[in-house]
Amino acid sequence: MAPLRSYVSGQWHTPSDEGTPLHDAVTGEEIARVSSTGVDMAAALAYGREHGAQLRELTFHQRAALLKSLGSYLMEHRDELYDLSHRTGATKGDNRFDVDGGIGTLFAYSSKGRREMPNDTVYVDGGLEPLGKGGTFFGQHICTPLHGVAVQVNAFNFPVWGPLEKFAPAFVAGVPSLIKPASQTAYLTARMVELVIGSGLLPEGSLQFVAGGVGDLFDHLTEQDLVSFTGSASTAQRLRAHENVIRRSVRFNAEADSLNCSILGPDATAGTPEFDLFVKQLVSEMTVKAGQKCTAIRRAFVPAELLDAVAEATQARLAKVTVGDPRNPDVRMGALASLEQREEVRRSLKALLEAGRIVFGDPDSVSVVDADVARGAFMSPVLLVADDPESAQPHEVEAFGPVSTLMPYRDAEHAIALAARGQGSLAGSVVTGDTEFARSIVIGVAPWHGRILVTDSENARENTGHGSPLPALVHGGPGRAGGGEEMGGIRGVLHHMQRTAVQGSPRVLSAVTNRWVPGAAQSKDVHPFRKHLEDLRLGDTVVAGPRRVTMADIEHFAEFTGDTFYAHMDEEAASVNPFFGGRVAHGYLVLSFAAGLFVQPDPGPVLANYGLDNLRFLTPTFPGDELTVTLTAKQITPRNDQEYGEVRWDTDVTNQKGESVAKYDVLTLVAKREQ
Amino acid sequence: MAPLRSYVSGQWHTPSDEGTPLHDAVTGEEIARVSSTGVDMAAALAYGREHGAQLRELTFHQRAALLKSLGSYLMEHRDELYDLSHRTGATKGDNRFDVDGGIGTLFAYSSKGRREMPNDTVYVDGGLEPLGKGGTFFGQHICTPLHGVAVQVNAFNFPVWGPLEKFAPAFVAGVPSLIKPASQTAYLTARMVELVIGSGLLPEGSLQFVAGGVGDLFDHLTEQDLVSFTGSASTAQRLRAHENVIRRSVRFNAEADSLNCSILGPDATAGTPEFDLFVKQLVSEMTVKAGQKCTAIRRAFVPAELLDAVAEATQARLAKVTVGDPRNPDVRMGALASLEQREEVRRSLKALLEAGRIVFGDPDSVSVVDADVARGAFMSPVLLVADDPESAQPHEVEAFGPVSTLMPYRDAEHAIALAARGQGSLAGSVVTGDTEFARSIVIGVAPWHGRILVTDSENARENTGHGSPLPALVHGGPGRAGGGEEMGGIRGVLHHMQRTAVQGSPRVLSAVTNRWVPGAAQSKDVHPFRKHLEDLRLGDTVVAGPRRVTMADIEHFAEFTGDTFYAHMDEEAASVNPFFGGRVAHGYLVLSFAAGLFVQPDPGPVLANYGLDNLRFLTPTFPGDELTVTLTAKQITPRNDQEYGEVRWDTDVTNQKGESVAKYDVLTLVAKREQ
Repeated sequence: MAPLRSYVSGQWHTPSDEGTPLHDAVTGEEIARVSSTGVDMAAALAYGREHGAQLRELTFHQRAALLKSLGSYLMEHRDELYDLSHRTGATKGDNRFDVDGGIGTLFAYSSKGRREMPNDTVYVDGGLEPLGKGGTFFGQHICTPLHGVAVQVNAFNFPVWGPLEKFAPAFVAGVPSLIKPASQTAYLTARMVELVIGSGLLPEGSLQFVAGGVGDLFDHLTEQDLVSFTGSASTAQRLRAHENVIRRSVRFNAEADSLNCSILGPDATAGTPEFDLFVKQLVSEMTVKAGQKCTAIRRAFVPAELLDAVAEATQARLAKVTVGDPRNPDVRMGALASLEQREEVRRSLKALLEAGRIVFGDPDSVSVVDADVARGAFMSPVLLVADDPESAQPHEVEAFGPVSTLMPYRDAEHAIALAARGQGSLAGSVVTGDTEFARSIVIGVAPWHGRILVTDSENARENTGHGSPLPALVHGGPGRAGGGEEMGGIRGVLHHMQRTAVQGSPRVLSAVTNRWVPGAAQSKDVHPFRKHLEDLRLGDTVVAGPRRVTMADIEHFAEFTGDTFYAHMDEEAASVNPFFGGRVAHGYLVLSFAAGLFVQPDPGPVLANYGLDNLRFLTPTFPGDELTVTLTAKQITPRNDQEYGEVRWDTDVTNQKGESVAKYDVLTLVAKREQ
Repeated sequence: MAPLRSYVSGQWHTPSDEGTPLHDAVTGEEIARVSSTGVDMAAALAYGREHGAQLRELTFHQRAALLKSLGSYLMEHRDELYDLSHRTGATKGDNRFDVDGGIGTLFAYSSKGRREMPNDTVYVDGGLEPLGKGGTFFGQHICTPLHGVAVQVNAFNFPVWGPLEKFAPAFVAGVPSLIKPASQTAYLTARMVELVIGSGLLPEGSLQFVAGGVGDLFDHLTEQDLVSFTGSASTAQRLRAHENVIRRSVRFNAEADSLNCSILGPDATAGTPEFDLFVKQLVSEMTVKAGQKCTAIRRAFVPAELLDAVAEATQARLAKVTVGDPRNPDVRMGALASLEQREEVRRSLKALLEAGRIVFGDPDSVSVVDADVARGAFMSPVLLVADDPESAQPHEVEAFGPVSTLMPYRDAEHAIALAARGQGSLAGSVVTGDTEFARSIVIGVAPWHGRILVTDSENARENTGHGSPLPALVHGGPGRAGGGEEMGGIRGVLHHMQRTAVQGSPRVLSAVTNRWVPGAAQSKDVHPFRKHLEDLRLGDTVVAGPRRVTMADIEHFAEFTGDTFYAHMDEEAASVNPFFGGRVAHGYLVLSFAAGLFVQPDPGPVLANYGLDNLRFLTPTFPGDELTVTLTAKQITPRNDQEYGEVRWDTDVTNQKGESVAKYDVLTLVAKREQ
């Protein structure tokens, strides 16, 4: 059997040696071989860096659109991936997490990229910082893509989701990926990569793939590259301390298995919906992917008085879990990824048994359906109880399989202290109907967690579960969990970029950010509402007014709208208001008059005013004041798939003394020229 | 002479040995001794962690207010700090950066904490993420303070600013600091800490101080502690690779010296204001703090044709720099921090001379005023020219003193490539009047920089200079600069906190974040505008309406305001608008009517509507539609130093079909009860 090919430097590379055999988790037969012998790692990194330039030329929206196409393409081929996935031991249900979850991440990042990032190549981070009183000097943080390669070292348990959840944010950022799967299930990742490359959708160089060991890859990393590692804590530590990683301050993000906990609230006694939800979730976390999830529940804390009831209910539910051929639709739990993996779990179980007793399952025996128990990496779910929750092992030893330990706790404070004994986790959960208990636990354990789920009967139907990372939420955790952070919506994109504080004059910052900055040039030739999207330029401005606001206007507006707030109507009462000192015009009157001044009545490119941001009323408007409005094109966002785009207008309403009465952003939709 | 005392575990600790002598940089006399012998590092960390609980009970605003008081206290004692600072070799001008800069950072963080963070103990990060369509399940990121100690290892060059710029964000975050200064100038930091502790302003345990070596401190760090290191790249590497730091994923932020560059634009020929600004800035960066700034300009890139002119102008300006006793007001540059430091600079200069030639200054000779040149660590500024900018040394060897190298470049692309040869810098600058050149350079070099300054004649007066980190902007840089990030406004606060994604039902997320989440309980007993700040509760709601919008209303509003946009006035034109399909009411009419519905006319606790956020018009309002508005208290921010606070109201205007017409946040100021 020929070893899996790598895809590096624009070519499929076949290893020059025989490679190491990989086995079907269910049948034990050889399914593939893996080796990276002959791959020139330095050349692959250089190739990625060089080709990053083309990727960086695309805007965030263009990259996001490509992700969507790629997601659709993989959707069309997912049966093939499902099929291969079964050979890793995964059931149909497991495939939803790995295959569908991976593809879903592409769609999610596509959507986030287009909704939350500009149609541009530079991301503007946070607000403008005035650095002087004269308005000639500002600071603005921007994020630009690193000019290196995102090296992604993945774990064996999610051969599709793992690489895609790292690739998607890197791609949106504009940074090429080099994917290195764990060997055990590399054949599935390899097939996924073949599909991606075969689709022809991605700019060449934006995805490379190395099956097998990393060789001397780490020796060639620079400060522009980054590493996203998922796997065991020991490997994470070894790679993080790599001499070259340390010397060049290479960004190193680690996501390692952790001893995640789930806490049952004292309110959730037997018979409550929360009690059932807790048991159901615990069994689900033990059996999905045969418990081979870095987010799975390893420690289940329950009020001491509920321990027996929970153990009993969990036993009953575990008894219904069918183990066997993952292709069989009745099978609830498939095989572990390999026989070696099962040995590893059994070894860890031995250590756990020093502090706990088994209340369900036999680590050495299981009955299976439709499979040869002697050949596949099958194992029974194993539930332990550690009667003394202070013992060390349950908080330190992770059995990376269908294994959890139940422990009793006394009160919220005790549960928080026990949770912290995990020294950092990816995910925790609380199951309770008691909001105060939920709040205490969440805030108490938050410093040790990347994600915390609160499950109750209210959200039970929509709840995505303890063990499921979501693209919109951060995935990672402190300490034992690796100290990293992935995804979290565009946070994950920004991890691939350098944040830089740029200081300069308004015109320079406008040019760098493609946003008009107050003080930069304004052009008043034509009313900008007369310009189509392509003709609009940042700084295009209309100044309109003045319009005098009379007492009659105020009274009329009050009567018409019903807004008869005393500050508008009653001189005596208004005079003691600490902010007005006399009757003032309504803020909404100011806005309405301003719109009346800048609007162009006839049909034109401006299609609609769809909103308004950051409105602040800065100076009261008194009867007799004269208002002028200045509207300046601040940001122009063409939509690649629409006949229009969004234009954000800096709006400043001033009075006859030149004081700003109100400042805000007007948001409009502006048509493109007819093609 | 007794060694400097440390302040640990609530007590001043005098070392049990004699310590190492420290010398006055100007006179060479022994000024202090330093040793940490006998300090129990593990106990100090444990003490900090334990006392962190009290600090965490304060809100961000309360902590920020304490910083302000501390800043004022230090301002009163700054002459004493100035005085001691001269002994480090610092001039009066240098003191502005170190002493005033440090105190200014306290004020800046006080202001940021109160303006940009809630008056609460949990920070809400980013928006609410709907995780289902049913509105029962959301995600929200929160940040909570780490339960450990912020270990701050500082450099010798900024003995006051260095510790304060790290302490301020840690304190606002709610994380206790342990300050460890570099020995050479530890006596100044020690005096500053004595003042801080003596002020009695800070909760006990929130600041500890170790003069001397760190001993076994690093062995006792946990995943809840963090390290902020400033100093040499080699020490950064050693500490970052510390076995315990790696094993427990201790957050490690490094800020190391880097080979920062400044680039002169081709437009800035001799005689232009930018040419002069470049030369002035270069000389300033060479001489402020005798060039002992990790942000100083080490590499100055100028267009090849301007090299001689720049060298000449810089020589002329350097010739006017008086070196000597830093207390003398005529002295422009004081001494280096120590004789050892000067030796180090001379060694580095030797390496630089392999690629460059000296065009100003003599490393071994300088004339000084008011000082004994044989005893003080005096040195002349030294300007080099490297005619071949491709040579290695200028991009790799840092002489941490008054030393810079001028190099020629061909074009923007070449300048960018040369800048990148520094392999990561804290700060870069461009001096140009050409906006396009500025944009190319900024975007080109951004991935290698934490901060980039663009200087031109427009911002010259307000420009804060190449080498000055500012509290509002990030300070740090990739690669050689350490890969870290400090300050940057509240970004620096968040570095001391754990970000956690919390998933749950609206009521749970409301309780955790102290912000009302749509779907959480609403209370409609009393009109909430009748309640004082202390009586208001999240979820207090008023539902008002319906009010029918007639065609007459629309026409009247158009006439009154002047907003006669065709979509309101012309049925035929409106019918072809892609978003309306017929005449619609003005958005501002909807807002005004909504206000008319929810306002309470008589004087009451609501003092003013000061703004509006995130307004989106979601459904057009057609003549005959009936509008209802629901206003719900979403966030309540009492101001500790005011008679009122801010209340943010979730606002939803719906039509007779229950569709949302507009959603926005109304911002009001609400009075507290009279005391």
